[in-house]
Amino acid sequence: MSAAARPRAAVVVTGSELLTGAISDRNGPWLSRELTGLGLEVAYVQLVGDRPADLARALDLAAEEGCELVVTSGGLGPTADDLTAEVVAAFAGAPLELDEAMYERIATILAGFAARTGFGGPALDEANRKEAMVPRGATALDPVGTAPGLVVPRPGGPLVVVLPGPPRELQGMWPTALVTEPVRDLLARVPALDARSLRFFGLPESEIAATLREIEAERDLSGVEITTCLRRSELEVDLRPRPGADDVAAALHAELARRHARHLVSTDGTSTDELLAGALRERGWTVATGESCTGGMLASRLVDVAGSSDYVAGGVVAYSNAAKTGLLGVPADMIATHGAVSPEVARALADGARERFGADVGIGITGVAGPGGGTEAKPVGYVCFCVTTADGQVLARDPRLPGGRTDIRERSTDVGMHLLLRAARRS
Amino acid sequence: MSAAARPRAAVVVTGSELLTGAISDRNGPWLSRELTGLGLEVAYVQLVGDRPADLARALDLAAEEGCELVVTSGGLGPTADDLTAEVVAAFAGAPLELDEAMYERIATILAGFAARTGFGGPALDEANRKEAMVPRGATALDPVGTAPGLVVPRPGGPLVVVLPGPPRELQGMWPTALVTEPVRDLLARVPALDARSLRFFGLPESEIAATLREIEAERDLSGVEITTCLRRSELEVDLRPRPGADDVAAALHAELARRHARHLVSTDGTSTDELLAGALRERGWTVATGESCTGGMLASRLVDVAGSSDYVAGGVVAYSNAAKTGLLGVPADMIATHGAVSPEVARALADGARERFGADVGIGITGVAGPGGGTEAKPVGYVCFCVTTADGQVLARDPRLPGGRTDIRERSTDVGMHLLLRAARRS
Repeated sequence: MSAAARPRAAVVVTGSELLTGAISDRNGPWLSRELTGLGLEVAYVQLVGDRPADLARALDLAAEEGCELVVTSGGLGPTADDLTAEVVAAFAGAPLELDEAMYERIATILAGFAARTGFGGPALDEANRKEAMVPRGATALDPVGTAPGLVVPRPGGPLVVVLPGPPRELQGMWPTALVTEPVRDLLARVPALDARSLRFFGLPESEIAATLREIEAERDLSGVEITTCLRRSELEVDLRPRPGADDVAAALHAELARRHARHLVSTDGTSTDELLAGALRERGWTVATGESCTGGMLASRLVDVAGSSDYVAGGVVAYSNAAKTGLLGVPADMIATHGAVSPEVARALADGARERFGADVGIGITGVAGPGGGTEAKPVGYVCFCVTTADGQVLARDPRLPGGRTDIRERSTDVGMHLLLRAARRS
Repeated sequence: MSAAARPRAAVVVTGSELLTGAISDRNGPWLSRELTGLGLEVAYVQLVGDRPADLARALDLAAEEGCELVVTSGGLGPTADDLTAEVVAAFAGAPLELDEAMYERIATILAGFAARTGFGGPALDEANRKEAMVPRGATALDPVGTAPGLVVPRPGGPLVVVLPGPPRELQGMWPTALVTEPVRDLLARVPALDARSLRFFGLPESEIAATLREIEAERDLSGVEITTCLRRSELEVDLRPRPGADDVAAALHAELARRHARHLVSTDGTSTDELLAGALRERGWTVATGESCTGGMLASRLVDVAGSSDYVAGGVVAYSNAAKTGLLGVPADMIATHGAVSPEVARALADGARERFGADVGIGITGVAGPGGGTEAKPVGYVCFCVTTADGQVLARDPRLPGGRTDIRERSTDVGMHLLLRAARRS
């Protein structure tokens, strides 16, 4: 069955700063997830500079590729390199006009800004006037920051949704864009999507590839778009059935889960962070961390979940040996005998954190994040983990993790999350 | 002067998982920074799915846009959706051939992998054979993981550099790609680039826009490509002179720095993290953190700099009131009187962290990250900061920060970094 059954969408993210690598785009991934969830097929994401000709060509490309929807982000700000509204108006063949009501609305927002920051005057009024220009026939979307968005129909398609660049503003404006009439009309034509996903931990991609080849030798999987994605230590498998192939996808989903049960983390797309939060709540456990090389990254990841104050007791970043001993009670002679990076110290960090914060489960992490400090016995990437619980569980690991300093710290945080999850799931 | 003086490059990142938003691309930003640094103009970054037709069209687009170089990432793995080598070979009009020497090299790597993980057998040999296929006339680049890269010349251009998807492998292989003959020949034709940048903290984008309009009214700035980029609380201004406009860019750079000196952080692109590391080293200071709402994010950011063990003493994630009192000595009656989120408690956290770790400078952060817990007096986004030093400095702030939970925590970390920097720079 053809993939053409799903309307195609393109995401065009503008900003010359994205092409110099000064900043990483967060809007492309966010919009892709939203559009995919709505059942559209994202044809591509294109990052272009603030040059009007480049944006114009990107819009032409979306039309050529048969996209029915283009979502743009950025280029709505007050500076001269912010030209999206102008270029989109030309693409749609509609003149720009000052939207008086929008002008007043922005003026009110800017007055508050001026009062709060002390910045104001003619600079702000020029910004106001520029941001209130709307292509004829388009729907203006109320600002979340100061810049309004646009929904701009083009005769013959595609429909263009113009959103601001700051992720907070873009995400805040998205629900408003979805309920405009042109977008609602488009979405009404999208077939329902019954996507399924699986997440594994510690399973190489080649194993899933082999399993898929085996299954494919027995039966036709061509109705299901299968993507595998290695995200540090996690492997995610997404199954998107084309219309009519829901049963094939469901059977494949169950079989992959069964064949690789030992490494299975989730079968419904729930993130590891949410799973751990749920498992800790279910046990009624509180957690405390004793981190050396990860330096607070694990604690920060735990705290990032809303409502985590219910089960995060706290943590210590025991980066120096003095801190390990002074704050978490790691015996100085243990450090002298085994080294600061050792399974023994990881366990003492876990116990120390658990006891110091009066928590039910503690985790200790100590390792060589590099680039310096590696030895033959304990090379860069060697990291010791220990999870201990008040009821006597001990889970320990000391893998050698690949990559540079940041990779090693991020992977260590992943391993820590999965060890905590394993402990909390044990009966 | 025309921007066409710089050879244009395109970055094509493959992976259907990028179009569902399952993962954020890290290769586009990294490659953009590298290519820009080499003096090329990045025309665009395009993220496409693992569908061969889509990659083929992306390569055609680069040729149509007059790009002299295309760098692709991803699609070199063992699964059936990894098709980059095949598509690039067709684009270059060169047949794929098994590279025997490369086959042996990969076999050796995989044998080590099999021994380490226990995964092996026919699944691995199929992966090996697939990854050792090289287009005729292309240069194969030694694997960093298991998949080799490629440098594939195409008659009439562009030159295609094919790199693996995992960022660690891509970054590790890049230097090898740069010294291949076809890439060296291309780079020899690139004019030198004298780019300049400025970073400000707490300066609205509209102020820079107004300043630029004022300066532009007096003199011609058209020889300089100017981009401004708001990155949470930091505003970055990049100036890229076209050939012959170096003096204009230098004068503009100096003027912007002078006019907005109060908010200036750096004039040479150095990151805030590096500046703070340098300032702490120069003072010979050690730093300790007492974090509530940021939950270790600030400590983790400090630790992310290589060599930070020289000046990071440690930190406490004092997320619960018991932890604030028990580990950092915040008086319980202070919390009862002023609330856990208060300037008083922020100061006590800073003093407590500094004293507990024996550090020269301490920072306390406590705030309402939301989504719950806000009140009229202390709404979501209200965050109290305090930096105190052993020599008696006290720097305090209590702004209301915008955004959702993650935004507020990230912005709080930014503010914390800048307050520490300010303290360390004071004479």
